[in-house]
Amino acid sequence: MSLLAVGTIAFDSIETPTDSRIRIMGGSATYFSYAAAFFAPVSLVGIVGKDWPDSYSRLLEERGIDLAGVVRDLSQDSYFWHGRYTINFQDRETLECQLRGFDKWVPIVPEQFLRSRFVFLGAASPTVQLQTLAQCNLPEFVFADTVDMWIETAGDDLRCVLARVNCLLINDSEARQLTSEQDLVRAGRKIQAMGPTMVVIKKGEHGSLFFHEGSIFPCPAFPTDRIVDPTGAGDSFAGAMIGYLTCQPKLDRRVLLNAIHYGTVVASFTVGGFSIEGLEAIEMSDIEERRTEFRNMLGVD
Amino acid sequence: MSLLAVGTIAFDSIETPTDSRIRIMGGSATYFSYAAAFFAPVSLVGIVGKDWPDSYSRLLEERGIDLAGVVRDLSQDSYFWHGRYTINFQDRETLECQLRGFDKWVPIVPEQFLRSRFVFLGAASPTVQLQTLAQCNLPEFVFADTVDMWIETAGDDLRCVLARVNCLLINDSEARQLTSEQDLVRAGRKIQAMGPTMVVIKKGEHGSLFFHEGSIFPCPAFPTDRIVDPTGAGDSFAGAMIGYLTCQPKLDRRVLLNAIHYGTVVASFTVGGFSIEGLEAIEMSDIEERRTEFRNMLGVD
Repeated sequence: MSLLAVGTIAFDSIETPTDSRIRIMGGSATYFSYAAAFFAPVSLVGIVGKDWPDSYSRLLEERGIDLAGVVRDLSQDSYFWHGRYTINFQDRETLECQLRGFDKWVPIVPEQFLRSRFVFLGAASPTVQLQTLAQCNLPEFVFADTVDMWIETAGDDLRCVLARVNCLLINDSEARQLTSEQDLVRAGRKIQAMGPTMVVIKKGEHGSLFFHEGSIFPCPAFPTDRIVDPTGAGDSFAGAMIGYLTCQPKLDRRVLLNAIHYGTVVASFTVGGFSIEGLEAIEMSDIEERRTEFRNMLGVD
Repeated sequence: MSLLAVGTIAFDSIETPTDSRIRIMGGSATYFSYAAAFFAPVSLVGIVGKDWPDSYSRLLEERGIDLAGVVRDLSQDSYFWHGRYTINFQDRETLECQLRGFDKWVPIVPEQFLRSRFVFLGAASPTVQLQTLAQCNLPEFVFADTVDMWIETAGDDLRCVLARVNCLLINDSEARQLTSEQDLVRAGRKIQAMGPTMVVIKKGEHGSLFFHEGSIFPCPAFPTDRIVDPTGAGDSFAGAMIGYLTCQPKLDRRVLLNAIHYGTVVASFTVGGFSIEGLEAIEMSDIEERRTEFRNMLGVD
């Protein structure tokens, strides 16, 4: 029951309304893997540059993440993102984004990962997503994420990805951008018509909408006023959700709702610190405790 | 088990991105009463002008709403609101609001309503809210709503109201305005510190946050893409929630969550038509059916 994940491993510089950090560990695949590893063994495929510290790799390995698929490119530095959040984290702006060849990178899935049952195509270019998928040996379930940059610049390739994935995770503004549909219920259904039978629209502090065949499951966020840095909330939501699903014998309604709840709860820990600090500080028992609290809030007994 | 409601009874002219209506029945107390009357007998206290048609009053009476407390002021026309919704109903602007003496009106609660167990002080001026309360004979539970206009112009009186109510219902932007707090979790707690042990922050398409003593219960909206006119959604949410509570022997966690679910579901019918059309078209069985669907969506069995 292993989970293969591909995506960005990066340095982030973050400015929030009250604090800031320079060159901390970030990247969608990093957050995803770290959250997923609470639930299932994760094999990570990605690329880092010559500036990537071994201590960061060790942090991931200590959580049981297999880094055999992470190559180090000594010709350049790592992916770098510099972002700033506005008042109350309502919006964020990208001040700088250095792909450093990430868009031209050709992923190589190590032999021992090729038979992974579940595959997560993180927010890499659609080309990288398709190259990853081409190497895999008929995975049972394929999840994907995408971001505004690829919707803008690689729409046709993204359509090819969508035709081949079972579940797309996407945030609200990007769902609107992808479908030219302001209403999120319509946007979700339009994405389903592009291929995935499941779609998760992530709405940040407002929770998520999960589309499964003809049904929609809305889920609020776990209410918290202790937001230090929202970066990675959506990626760790995806990691916990998919990590949990990886170990389930079948994906029925109850299991899918549990997965959404785990995603919601783990994301609420992520926003409590910079980088993966909020997740480093907890154990599975903390996740279970907050999940019970969340279920009580929803009236699920 | 009767419910006394005071608030605006009005004409609305509405412009949506796709349609419009001129001088249809509106007003916070109108929506509130119509929704509450599915669950409990409602006694309405309000004022209408010389232009108010008997047919509108009959619509309310046919639903079992007692209008003995509604006076007709033959010296002027009724309260009038003209609003416009922007693309996808994300925002609305007030183009015209004619109070027509509503802010100077002195409410008179009829003798037979004075012992109402539950009282809802709709979004009238704090003066009207306090005058209503002064006449009531120790109601068991007092709910109130308010809007930006009163927060801006009558803050001190509003504080007096808050000190005397058990539950405030307020929308997200107004909760921020009232507390000078951008974070809604903090805003809700600040409002609790002003008096009400219960606070409901209504977030429109994103659902609600219900604060009860030390707990918070987040609830998503019922997902729908059939939005004709969102006017009155919050008022009918309040009506269904409080109407349901009026008939319950005690207000424990399960009953309070049921109340939020009824509010959510009834609001989703309201937005399906202009004025009260969405509620006129349904019966209690439709509400129960959608509530079951909503509970399934949340995983509450």
